[in-house]
Amino acid sequence: MLDTLFNPKSVAIIGASQKALSIGNVITRNLLRYEFKGPIYPINPKADEICGLKAYPSVLEVTGDIDVAHISIPAKFAPMAIDECGKKGIKFVIINSAGFKEVGPEGEAIEKETVARAKTHGIRVFGPNCQGIINTDPDVKAYCDFTFTFPEPGHVSIVAQSGGVGAVFMQNIHDLEVGMRFYASNGNACDISIPEILRYYGEDEGTRVIILYVEGFSDPKEFMEAAREVAAKKPILAMRAGRSQEGAKAAVSHTGGLVGVGLSTELIFKKTGILTFTDQEEMCQAAMAFASQPIPRGNRVGLITDTGGPAIIATDALVEAGMKIPPLSEKAKDVLKEKLYPEASVHNPIDVLATGQAPHWRAAMDVLMEEDQVDSVYINFVTPPFVDCESVAKEMAEVSKQRKKPIVCNYMTDKPQWTGTTEILKSGNIPRYDYAEMAAKALAALSRYNDMCSRETGEVVHFDDVDRDTAQKILQGAKQTGRKNLSASDVYTLLGAYRIPAADWRMASNPEEAGKFAAEIGFPVVIKADSEEIVHKSDVGGVKVNLQDAKAVKSAAAEMEKKFGPKGLRFFVQKFMPGGKEVIIGAKAEPGLGHTVMFGLGGIMVELMKDVSFELTPIASGEAKEMLTSIKSYPLLSGFRGDKGVDREKLAEVIQRVSQLVTELPEIQEMDLNPIIAYEDRVFVVDARIIIS
Amino acid sequence: MLDTLFNPKSVAIIGASQKALSIGNVITRNLLRYEFKGPIYPINPKADEICGLKAYPSVLEVTGDIDVAHISIPAKFAPMAIDECGKKGIKFVIINSAGFKEVGPEGEAIEKETVARAKTHGIRVFGPNCQGIINTDPDVKAYCDFTFTFPEPGHVSIVAQSGGVGAVFMQNIHDLEVGMRFYASNGNACDISIPEILRYYGEDEGTRVIILYVEGFSDPKEFMEAAREVAAKKPILAMRAGRSQEGAKAAVSHTGGLVGVGLSTELIFKKTGILTFTDQEEMCQAAMAFASQPIPRGNRVGLITDTGGPAIIATDALVEAGMKIPPLSEKAKDVLKEKLYPEASVHNPIDVLATGQAPHWRAAMDVLMEEDQVDSVYINFVTPPFVDCESVAKEMAEVSKQRKKPIVCNYMTDKPQWTGTTEILKSGNIPRYDYAEMAAKALAALSRYNDMCSRETGEVVHFDDVDRDTAQKILQGAKQTGRKNLSASDVYTLLGAYRIPAADWRMASNPEEAGKFAAEIGFPVVIKADSEEIVHKSDVGGVKVNLQDAKAVKSAAAEMEKKFGPKGLRFFVQKFMPGGKEVIIGAKAEPGLGHTVMFGLGGIMVELMKDVSFELTPIASGEAKEMLTSIKSYPLLSGFRGDKGVDREKLAEVIQRVSQLVTELPEIQEMDLNPIIAYEDRVFVVDARIIIS
Repeated sequence: MLDTLFNPKSVAIIGASQKALSIGNVITRNLLRYEFKGPIYPINPKADEICGLKAYPSVLEVTGDIDVAHISIPAKFAPMAIDECGKKGIKFVIINSAGFKEVGPEGEAIEKETVARAKTHGIRVFGPNCQGIINTDPDVKAYCDFTFTFPEPGHVSIVAQSGGVGAVFMQNIHDLEVGMRFYASNGNACDISIPEILRYYGEDEGTRVIILYVEGFSDPKEFMEAAREVAAKKPILAMRAGRSQEGAKAAVSHTGGLVGVGLSTELIFKKTGILTFTDQEEMCQAAMAFASQPIPRGNRVGLITDTGGPAIIATDALVEAGMKIPPLSEKAKDVLKEKLYPEASVHNPIDVLATGQAPHWRAAMDVLMEEDQVDSVYINFVTPPFVDCESVAKEMAEVSKQRKKPIVCNYMTDKPQWTGTTEILKSGNIPRYDYAEMAAKALAALSRYNDMCSRETGEVVHFDDVDRDTAQKILQGAKQTGRKNLSASDVYTLLGAYRIPAADWRMASNPEEAGKFAAEIGFPVVIKADSEEIVHKSDVGGVKVNLQDAKAVKSAAAEMEKKFGPKGLRFFVQKFMPGGKEVIIGAKAEPGLGHTVMFGLGGIMVELMKDVSFELTPIASGEAKEMLTSIKSYPLLSGFRGDKGVDREKLAEVIQRVSQLVTELPEIQEMDLNPIIAYEDRVFVVDARIIIS
Repeated sequence: MLDTLFNPKSVAIIGASQKALSIGNVITRNLLRYEFKGPIYPINPKADEICGLKAYPSVLEVTGDIDVAHISIPAKFAPMAIDECGKKGIKFVIINSAGFKEVGPEGEAIEKETVARAKTHGIRVFGPNCQGIINTDPDVKAYCDFTFTFPEPGHVSIVAQSGGVGAVFMQNIHDLEVGMRFYASNGNACDISIPEILRYYGEDEGTRVIILYVEGFSDPKEFMEAAREVAAKKPILAMRAGRSQEGAKAAVSHTGGLVGVGLSTELIFKKTGILTFTDQEEMCQAAMAFASQPIPRGNRVGLITDTGGPAIIATDALVEAGMKIPPLSEKAKDVLKEKLYPEASVHNPIDVLATGQAPHWRAAMDVLMEEDQVDSVYINFVTPPFVDCESVAKEMAEVSKQRKKPIVCNYMTDKPQWTGTTEILKSGNIPRYDYAEMAAKALAALSRYNDMCSRETGEVVHFDDVDRDTAQKILQGAKQTGRKNLSASDVYTLLGAYRIPAADWRMASNPEEAGKFAAEIGFPVVIKADSEEIVHKSDVGGVKVNLQDAKAVKSAAAEMEKKFGPKGLRFFVQKFMPGGKEVIIGAKAEPGLGHTVMFGLGGIMVELMKDVSFELTPIASGEAKEMLTSIKSYPLLSGFRGDKGVDREKLAEVIQRVSQLVTELPEIQEMDLNPIIAYEDRVFVVDARIIIS
């Protein structure tokens, strides 16, 4: 669909200008400088010639076909320009000008008008308020953009909502001497969207890895569908920006009306199989490895070094990034003892010494390529002036070309002096890093991608034993009375309808009945004052726990009646559950997305240590299990220091039932099962809250 | 003392060679290439000329004075070479050759012999197994080293134990276009030590910031003394390597006989005022800021940007690094509204827009320089091809030269194209970063340094009320009986001698006496079987808690007697302390250093969450308080959600008393007060363990 946009045979620039410091002029110059393979038509009614090219007063005066037209004239003239493009039969326009939705209602109206007219002409719009696209294909060389980096052809494609961040990625990928395939930054995205661009990259054979930067989603579900589809084919690396409250605020203030980023972005990335980064440099450096190296089968690294200190730093960085440094086999050590200097270290890291020669390096690499317990190879290569480094590099390049296991190289040198060595490493597609830490993180990213691909999320189970009708009736009833915060009996009936286990309960309308029901349930019990007026029950004496007999229940209820008055007051009587561990499961609606579900251990683990896990609905069985195992305090659930664990199967089931519940009843805005008391073989909700829209 | 070493007027290379791939040849070439200002004397009995210089068969044949002689001949000839240097009156030798302590006992013997002979001649030895020194002073230009980076003069001095890591720092500082002052990597450090080099850098006016890399300490106390002295004068930035177990192992295996690194290194750095980093790049990039910018008075940052996305990323990175983004004053916003484009954002971050011109940038900078609630300025500068960037850069340079507040710049450009702009920024001493995150981290490092300088550690209190004699007698007694694990009565008597509060206790020799003592103490009590044979008391039924009367005590003791036999068995009776919060204070001897003291909340917070703090003895009052406040679960001590806190003053005092105790009784290897029960107004040790050497 976007083929013509990314592979134009001719480009017009409406608003091309002779003024050097203008966007129209910069785009014209960029196309010329990048040696675009087709004709370039500057459009300007007041000039005959721009940047040495014949200028035209209108696209209609151009005799040849035009595949893509830039519009870089003031926003208010955009609809008119669209009409002319329509008449000319142009199928794609890139609107670089600002002054649309991002400036307020007036601009928004112009944007709508522009899109509407484009639709009548069958024109697809890229932008407005955007940079544009770049295609590095030597047969195309389309630099339809006003940025300043002139990339070499390669296999990394970039799509960025923010042009500033996109430019940073493009520039730094270029500085790393990594080639690029496509670039796209679509600004306001009034028509051609990021999901559409992602899909185009997904189908493109030349794209091996995608770099993505988004600050929000106009249609999260569409994004997820596209991302999932593309991520199944090739790695997508993405930045999670707006992580801090302050950052999220900055994101919202600078773009026009998009959903704020943050947690839900992270969950979307995780669910669709996008590899997340929180640091631009780390992402660019990882892209270098993804563009040239195979994916490892695991996280076990073999290291080779010719200097001690950097090996310590690399080891620290690898371990901290989740990698393992396995010991080498006796066989491997025997080979190394025979082939390396006697002072060399034949353990992992293998130290060939600063004086190590090409055959030593080759022996070490060959050994690691053969070692079963090694999935990837990390090289620390300082270029000693007394060693024939080009010969060493040749061996590295040769081994890399075998593509048996991924290799990264912390290349410690003065590049202007070691150009020959650098070229050889480059010819072997060996990613080269200035710092041990970066090389380690890049390798860890490859391994993280392998983990993600082999992640077992399981299936989304559909529980047929639920009573959706009853649940819906409860919500309808609450809506009719205008109640947003459901009553205790509604909450527990609803949980019952979804077979979410709760401690046995009854709703009593007076102290006498409370006592009777308590006896039915069996002691001890807890009673809670139930009334719309009482919000923080326990703060005002509306909760009494561990009541041992009917008399205690009746007197507690009577006391509450005295305190709150009998009007609208009922008594929620529930089995009191001593012992067990408190856990929390909560859900919160995410507009356009579904719900986020939270899991954590109750009390200080949630409130103080923030030790919780999140997942987006619908939650599959494997995801539910991961929510349990991924919290730091998981050992308290699985059994810790002699303590017996709790029924994790059941907790995972409750998470999945909650997921189904909020998915089938989307009017639920918030839901808190807090706490759930978990025992070795059972779990019970003992307090719950549901808020509807 | 080291003045001649770092400022030699003449250099000889014993072992200079015509062979290009040899260390002696590389050093000779380096001195020539770097244009060393004095005569260079290659020493080689078999050559007349090396690298175009006249060669001498021996230093004794050189007619002029020699300040520094390299020795790069096989280790076994080093002592002989030293003798010749002595005869010649040379005062400093740099032994580059390997084959000394690092290769085993034989090499160690040669190293000892070399040092001994040097001493008789009054020669100071740098190395062996080392790179050497560099002085960039244009009047000296001493490249007494075989590395390959040729740095510009500047204000960063580097000292690194590992030559590999030192070379990485030097190269990357150079690549960042930051000038260097001195470089030193002293390998085995048989004579001239890192503390001595640090002191030399400390006294050098040209050195504004020191980069330090160590993997261990041969004399930790000497290091601490020197570091503290120098850190008081100028920033020392240091790497903490060997953090992971695997990394520490790698450190130990590659150097000769040094204390392993890890936690104690971090504590040494903290205590002496060294700024710690865990990432080489972050440290180099911070050094760039330290070398050129003033130190901020606080952590409040004002941002200026000309592009939205990078401002979000910068905000995230700043907040995550502990910085604050304060709102701007109304006055400031009014000025900005008047001076910037109408669509510009006048909040923090200030967005001057991509089309922002020099006067806009200047207005924004002036506003931030005047704002009281802003301590430093962060700039996001993408260089739009349609803006006069050189004029913008001139304003930045001018403001930076005022040195009112530190400025860092995330400089998003293609450097080969924007050379003019880059040069202007450079002339203004503005540190330039490729990524928003790096600029943010560098600024945060400046702020962290300010925090460190204004850290209130308080005084080391000496408690006069302790009874050291009694304590010493207890340890002597235990030593005489050969007991390493002190008995309960010894432990508690010792705690009493140092006025560390413990729950009231008695030691009973039979069940009858246990009952009697329990009555004296008051119920409830706990009793513990005390015998050298019983180690894990509670696992084997050697502990009974919450005993309510004498009868219960006697029968519990009798049962223990039945189980363990009466021989050597005594009964430790102690007041049972219900309620309260469990905390742990522990101490562990660190050879050559003193002790590390640990603090944490008991139970899962220590065992599962590893939420603990450490400090080295002697612990000052402010440090003790910091140990409490720096744990994540501190709110549990200070009062959390209605819960009352505990007596933190008293806990801080116990930490200081423990510090004094282990300092005055250094034979204590390990000490655990676990748990201490802390109440609102009191604390009591209820279990303790002391192990002596």
